[in-house]
Amino acid sequence: MDLRGKMEEKYRNIIIDYLRDQSEQTLYQGQKFSRELIEKKISPEEIVSLHKGLLLDLYPNVPESVIHSFDVLLEVMVGYGLAYREHQSLRNKQM
Amino acid sequence: MDLRGKMEEKYRNIIIDYLRDQSEQTLYQGQKFSRELIEKKISPEEIVSLHKGLLLDLYPNVPESVIHSFDVLLEVMVGYGLAYREHQSLRNKQM
Repeated sequence: MDLRGKMEEKYRNIIIDYLRDQSEQTLYQGQKFSRELIEKKISPEEIVSLHKGLLLDLYPNVPESVIHSFDVLLEVMVGYGLAYREHQSLRNKQM
Repeated sequence: MDLRGKMEEKYRNIIIDYLRDQSEQTLYQGQKFSRELIEKKISPEEIVSLHKGLLLDLYPNVPESVIHSFDVLLEVMVGYGLAYREHQSLRNKQM
């Protein structure tokens, strides 16, 4: 399984765990996972896209509009991803 | 209306427009809005939280699990927001 496949599986498991118990502990797993994603240079829009796919997979009857709304969230996150990468590349140049 | 109120209204309008027409043009509005949010130092997790609230508002019957799933996405985005702010503050120190 490649890196993205592994990350997807991990995110899926955290979501499924959280939907089962809604515990603070599972949220903390999400927090730790976030650091791992950033280290592995996964962009925030990839996570939003993954989240959208997971919802479709877990709830095939979720209203279409809810799924469509993710396109806007995704577009906004692309901007955050870009800004972060620009910052990183500027910093690397300064080092 | 304060800055956050204005941003919320703008995001709400983009989402509503997009759900009506699903046009590339509306997605482009989302892209421009993203730059505005970053300039105004709005964090990515604030947008995810706003998105969650909007879905609840627009679709009160959306499955509870879909809404809960946003807590995990939010937690992950907190990490991205933090990493970005750390980068910014490091860069400011270097300048």
